[in-house]
Amino acid sequence: MLERFHVPEKDRVYVQQERVRAATEAILRHSGVSARGAKDSAEVLITNDLRGVESHGVSNGLRRYVRQYASKELNPRPKPKILKETSTTARVDGDFALGTEVGIWCMNMAIEKARAHGVGAVSLKNTGHLAGCGYYAYMATEHDMLGHMMTAGGGHQTVPTFGAKPLFGTNPVAWAAPAGKMPPYLLDVATTQVAGNKIELARRVGATLYPGWIAKKDGTPIMEEVPAPPAGTYYMLPFGGTRENGSHKAYGIALMNEIWCNELSGMGPGPLLDHAGGSFFAAYSIEAFTDLKEFKKNMDRMLEECANCPPAPGFERVLYPGLSEHEEFVSRSRDGIPYHREVVDWFESYCAETGIKAPLR
Amino acid sequence: MLERFHVPEKDRVYVQQERVRAATEAILRHSGVSARGAKDSAEVLITNDLRGVESHGVSNGLRRYVRQYASKELNPRPKPKILKETSTTARVDGDFALGTEVGIWCMNMAIEKARAHGVGAVSLKNTGHLAGCGYYAYMATEHDMLGHMMTAGGGHQTVPTFGAKPLFGTNPVAWAAPAGKMPPYLLDVATTQVAGNKIELARRVGATLYPGWIAKKDGTPIMEEVPAPPAGTYYMLPFGGTRENGSHKAYGIALMNEIWCNELSGMGPGPLLDHAGGSFFAAYSIEAFTDLKEFKKNMDRMLEECANCPPAPGFERVLYPGLSEHEEFVSRSRDGIPYHREVVDWFESYCAETGIKAPLR
Repeated sequence: MLERFHVPEKDRVYVQQERVRAATEAILRHSGVSARGAKDSAEVLITNDLRGVESHGVSNGLRRYVRQYASKELNPRPKPKILKETSTTARVDGDFALGTEVGIWCMNMAIEKARAHGVGAVSLKNTGHLAGCGYYAYMATEHDMLGHMMTAGGGHQTVPTFGAKPLFGTNPVAWAAPAGKMPPYLLDVATTQVAGNKIELARRVGATLYPGWIAKKDGTPIMEEVPAPPAGTYYMLPFGGTRENGSHKAYGIALMNEIWCNELSGMGPGPLLDHAGGSFFAAYSIEAFTDLKEFKKNMDRMLEECANCPPAPGFERVLYPGLSEHEEFVSRSRDGIPYHREVVDWFESYCAETGIKAPLR
Repeated sequence: MLERFHVPEKDRVYVQQERVRAATEAILRHSGVSARGAKDSAEVLITNDLRGVESHGVSNGLRRYVRQYASKELNPRPKPKILKETSTTARVDGDFALGTEVGIWCMNMAIEKARAHGVGAVSLKNTGHLAGCGYYAYMATEHDMLGHMMTAGGGHQTVPTFGAKPLFGTNPVAWAAPAGKMPPYLLDVATTQVAGNKIELARRVGATLYPGWIAKKDGTPIMEEVPAPPAGTYYMLPFGGTRENGSHKAYGIALMNEIWCNELSGMGPGPLLDHAGGSFFAAYSIEAFTDLKEFKKNMDRMLEECANCPPAPGFERVLYPGLSEHEEFVSRSRDGIPYHREVVDWFESYCAETGIKAPLR
């Protein structure tokens, strides 16, 4: 994540993951979620925080989920239904579960199908927020599989290249692959210049947005550096920002996401219907294609080649997707997760109000 | 394609597709290729030309393939071998066929597996040039399936974000999905700012390259508009161009391509081994997930929404991937394909030298 998105040192409160995990589970349980559901959702959110993906951890998400459970927008006791199924595919109705709960369920189904038949793919409709895609794609790597996961929620934010009307959400995509001794490859990115949550985060930490990150409401990319503007005053751009920098490619990938997530799940076009978006989960068994040991040895060589790539002038090092996330995971597991004190305040006041005993510090 | 890549009007020779198809087949036959192989390869190349993807048609490719057959780098009579197979997956050794020949064979295998079991995925090693990915992904749409195809050849061209050493080729990716009455969705893009062939094409038509399209040999992005430089004097950049414009996302997708194509096929790391790259083909049966008619109706609504999106100031219209390709296909099928006269000269002199009777005009 760019430096400007990190919580400034003076505002940081380091919290041990066991504590924030317990508090998150307790808060979800208080909203009526089952023990298993609360455990799974906390696992997704805290893993994101441990990986440094705090835009998709508890800071931005949890209080919203609590509101959505309270307003019955989310179902705390969902019964996911399989609407159609083959040996390798399934279409699931999530029964308005929080996405973090039913997402794990769907990815496990894709993994089991891939274990039995080589490939597994699951299409999901009717859920709440998935909190990014990386967690689910990564799950496949723990079963020696390639993982792929996408979700298409929150339309009406992102203009297509050359367009003035916002059609898409941030339409994130994730792919993951295991290695031997190197940390797994894990790409988890919005197809916009910046994840929606990061604009909120930028506002919280007082960071500015780069040129070409957002568009005016007539679709024109804003080519100056500007403070994060209030919601409703701008549109998002596909990454690249302009046609010349390849934004049409990111728009095309956003549209792939829309089709795979919304049309395949039967939710229908995100830009035309007021829904929270469908999702797509896939796992590919590596052994169904090739020798697993050789694959992992080659992955190690490939990922080392990336990590050892000499940097261009002015840069410290070359990363690969998943490497800094792994390093953050190790250091935050040891030192705690640096939350903004405002987030810790919310936890503490919510727990005080509701009588939940789960101290963060 | 950007205007600067089009063949200038004064240099255009319009050729009817039947003529260039016949000439291409005859030239490939003259290199020893089977009737079926020549037909399939011509079909991929001429379809690319008809779609306006002339960077992956006969102009850049054919004379190279002829040289590669002559030097025995390509095998004119390949016997593809299935190295591993499950109901949904296969790994294929292409026996050094031209990729356009064995690519159709592999995509058909993925489609048949998807028809029988819901999903099909095929990994391919040891081939020549595939001529882009779009043709193969599109094949799935003709069977009411989603298509996905990638290939990872020609490493040592593209630096990773922040890097000074070129690790990747242009690592193109394609996805396709059918609609009802609207032309199919078809995304076929390099993960670099510009396809490798397009720099050659830019040199031929005298076009310049935009800022951020290529890097100096120390990895620094060149942020001025420059004429297309000679091969060997620059490196390519992932699309987006810089970290701030999301090049790390395109780098991450290029690495996904590398893993799915080279590690899964058993070819091994492209940057470390001097090979032409593996490929990945996948098809997903729409009916294995959802109702096909409803899917197509929703696709029409979605694609119409894109095509009807009001343009931002200064732009004429909003496209979706596959729309202008379809329009080009219709007009070029009718009016002929506008080749650069230098390309037509090559065909004519090659046919004259070899006694092939296949006039282009």
